[in-house]
Amino acid sequence: MEAPSSTPDQLTSDLRALERELWTQEYLMKISEFDGATVAPEKGAAARGEALGYLAAKNHALLTGERAQELVRAGEAAVERGDITDAQLADEIRVLARDQREAQAIPEEDEVAFTRLVCEADAVWHKAKNASDWESFEPYIDRLVAAIKRRAELIDPDRDPYDVMLDQYERGLTAAQFDAFCTEVRGTVVPLVAEIGERPQPEAAFLNAHVPEGVQRSLSYDLMRLVGLDMEASALAFTEHPFSEGFASGDARVTTHIFEDNLMSNVYSVIHEAGHAIYEQNVDPAYACTRLEGGTSLGIHESQSRLFENTIGRSRAFMGPLLRVLRAHAPEVYGQVSEDELYRAVNIAQPSLIRTEADELTYPLHIMIRYEIERELFSGEARACDIPRRWADLTRHYLGLEVPDHARGALQDTHWSGGSFGYFPTYALGSAYDAQFLPALERDGVDVDAAAASGDLAPVRAWLCEKIWRHGRAKDAPELIQAACGAPLDAGFYCDYLKRKFGELYGL
Amino acid sequence: MEAPSSTPDQLTSDLRALERELWTQEYLMKISEFDGATVAPEKGAAARGEALGYLAAKNHALLTGERAQELVRAGEAAVERGDITDAQLADEIRVLARDQREAQAIPEEDEVAFTRLVCEADAVWHKAKNASDWESFEPYIDRLVAAIKRRAELIDPDRDPYDVMLDQYERGLTAAQFDAFCTEVRGTVVPLVAEIGERPQPEAAFLNAHVPEGVQRSLSYDLMRLVGLDMEASALAFTEHPFSEGFASGDARVTTHIFEDNLMSNVYSVIHEAGHAIYEQNVDPAYACTRLEGGTSLGIHESQSRLFENTIGRSRAFMGPLLRVLRAHAPEVYGQVSEDELYRAVNIAQPSLIRTEADELTYPLHIMIRYEIERELFSGEARACDIPRRWADLTRHYLGLEVPDHARGALQDTHWSGGSFGYFPTYALGSAYDAQFLPALERDGVDVDAAAASGDLAPVRAWLCEKIWRHGRAKDAPELIQAACGAPLDAGFYCDYLKRKFGELYGL
Repeated sequence: MEAPSSTPDQLTSDLRALERELWTQEYLMKISEFDGATVAPEKGAAARGEALGYLAAKNHALLTGERAQELVRAGEAAVERGDITDAQLADEIRVLARDQREAQAIPEEDEVAFTRLVCEADAVWHKAKNASDWESFEPYIDRLVAAIKRRAELIDPDRDPYDVMLDQYERGLTAAQFDAFCTEVRGTVVPLVAEIGERPQPEAAFLNAHVPEGVQRSLSYDLMRLVGLDMEASALAFTEHPFSEGFASGDARVTTHIFEDNLMSNVYSVIHEAGHAIYEQNVDPAYACTRLEGGTSLGIHESQSRLFENTIGRSRAFMGPLLRVLRAHAPEVYGQVSEDELYRAVNIAQPSLIRTEADELTYPLHIMIRYEIERELFSGEARACDIPRRWADLTRHYLGLEVPDHARGALQDTHWSGGSFGYFPTYALGSAYDAQFLPALERDGVDVDAAAASGDLAPVRAWLCEKIWRHGRAKDAPELIQAACGAPLDAGFYCDYLKRKFGELYGL
Repeated sequence: MEAPSSTPDQLTSDLRALERELWTQEYLMKISEFDGATVAPEKGAAARGEALGYLAAKNHALLTGERAQELVRAGEAAVERGDITDAQLADEIRVLARDQREAQAIPEEDEVAFTRLVCEADAVWHKAKNASDWESFEPYIDRLVAAIKRRAELIDPDRDPYDVMLDQYERGLTAAQFDAFCTEVRGTVVPLVAEIGERPQPEAAFLNAHVPEGVQRSLSYDLMRLVGLDMEASALAFTEHPFSEGFASGDARVTTHIFEDNLMSNVYSVIHEAGHAIYEQNVDPAYACTRLEGGTSLGIHESQSRLFENTIGRSRAFMGPLLRVLRAHAPEVYGQVSEDELYRAVNIAQPSLIRTEADELTYPLHIMIRYEIERELFSGEARACDIPRRWADLTRHYLGLEVPDHARGALQDTHWSGGSFGYFPTYALGSAYDAQFLPALERDGVDVDAAAASGDLAPVRAWLCEKIWRHGRAKDAPELIQAACGAPLDAGFYCDYLKRKFGELYGL
């Protein structure tokens, strides 16, 4: 054991060294995972697993070790006493202390057992999904829910376990709050979807025109530039499922998947992931290598990706700049398409079975199906064996569709097999935050439509950077929303936005 | 300090745990470096440098720490006493001890200073090469040579520093030995090049035909298969300079650079790098995560890459299978090219200025230029300021060419700026080993030409695996060559091979 940090300067330097080492380990884990998703061969998985397990154990030991505990205690005391007055450092200590407390709550043997269970569940789920075989995966759901309830109780024995998990993904979020959110959104969306179902859909054969991989690749870079990524601090890679990751100050990357007969899948994946990456790129550089680097929550992260993908990316105003990019790369397909035709085509609202392919309007209904089932699993009202029936009922009820098989039903998402329960709500919150940002932007003098129409999104980025991006993990979601919008989350904005946009699109 | 390992079983398990941790750190370094070379954005360099520095320091501390020293001492004693009889474990202890001894020889402050010097030199070299500006880089050469001489003295104060460095790259190699090698090879190659200079060169306009990137990409995979890589344990990526890397049992990758008007550059880069990768893929799986994993030396590694690239890949017999691949992907270019035309085209021998683009015959002359200058720098006969003149003299003398600028002269290679002196000879040794393998293969009943002509290289791979690949780092180069060829390295085979091949090609 090293000597306790004797002066505030020494303490500051010791804390920063601890943060830097944690950061380095996490950077290496992310690089190794990215390598696994983008280029590593199949048979390299065992070695990667070994290395990731090694780093995860080192990271947990470092974060929760005696030395780190002592440093956090000394740091908190120094802030309390007024020996540390630097606001950033105080934030670092607060966030480090919370990370440490939560990591410490789970005993190492539980952590190892959980990691093993998730690994196993994930492997079984992959096969089960391919074979649409619910039964083989079913036992894992009950085991996972039990394990996660135990984790939640270890983190906070005084609260409802599902609330504890929601709070892990979106600080401050409770089931009561999300219930109210769902009630309000459902009340708007379900009748809207029904009304639209009676209207004709636009013709848009160009959506499935063949656009070669090479063309889609170079087009993707133009979209990253349009979002405003610093291209010297970003990269594009190709994966089974698109994702993005912030690795470091100066390194946030986007991945996409190209289907030659579905250009828009690539277009909106890239814009979405670029929205995540630009958030990571614009965290205050002073936070580099500290606990404050990176995005603050899943919901806030999703609000950034969806703002670029939907709120701007699927707005009427943006069709001009978007069409210019499409025409530059695929003139034979987009030369004759008008802005209006493009706008209608990228906003076709129609119930469908797969969440990741759902349109902006029906998307929240997919979240509600999952959320309701998770709640029932956690309350004990339902068990894994009830899921297929509940999934079918809720899909019929909300989307008016029959579930033809489990692959397009309860096996479609990777979240549960990955041990993530309480995660889905953050997707719906992202869009709701966006709808609330719009009047705030307007009030602050930012003309979003003018920026979208010009293709120069700098004014929007400046506002997002000031209100959201630069704060990194120093502020939690509720605080950011309150400061940006002057009010807490209010689903009314989201409902109004959907009613206005889709009402106009379908002439309701 | 943990308790000393009390039983042979405990000692074995402690040693293996140490090896595994060292392996994991080295795996992560390689993944991070690969990420840097293939996909990471420019501004991600600082973070990667931070992470690599962290791992390198951890790795050095772990390898040379008290605990590791104690384990190595206990391991060596147990082998000595006969408590450890397992041959593999004894090899692991021997190689670990050597790695440890050499790492320990350099004090940490020297190591850090050297790393910093190399980083700085490398950055300056990149700019200097682009600007063909020798003067800015010149001071680094003197500093690097002084630093490396000091390292060599720390590793072994009783030997000539240049011999110590040669031994680092190729165990057992001495300057006296390489001098003799050069004298013999020079005596064959210089007159051969002069004679060929008086003969007409073949027409081969197809070499510069346009072959699109996408076509070259898919063609590359066929070449990896032709070499015989396990495609589930390999991957192909795209970089500024082609390289290969073995990451783990089950993960050895190839990179290439595509020029659309120079398909053969890609073809032979891929075959060459696949030759390195297949060696790494075929080390005894029992060596995974131990000190014995990976190739044993640079010279042996280069012998494998050049065997596939030149000895087989540019042989008359291989033109059939190669032409089949070329025609499958680029029929409009290769449909009318005959095997004979292809054979002559890929074996054009002609003095040129750039080592990496040199043909099989003139290549060793490029090595001799560098080797002679390194020897003069280490003996004190020359200083950095003398290099341009020496480079020009030697280029004129060996290749009959004038050096037009430093970028195509002494600034062309990355080795010196990277702190690698004594490395170049291994490239020439690789080809010489290959020429000596040929009669050994024949004696062991392997018909290399028949395998090359059929496109099924399995018999050649089986021999290489038995003689070279499977041994990993358990045997040093001289031992491998003696066992495979029944004699030590003999440059006569290489000279005969070049005389026969190029004599026939140019009708001498």
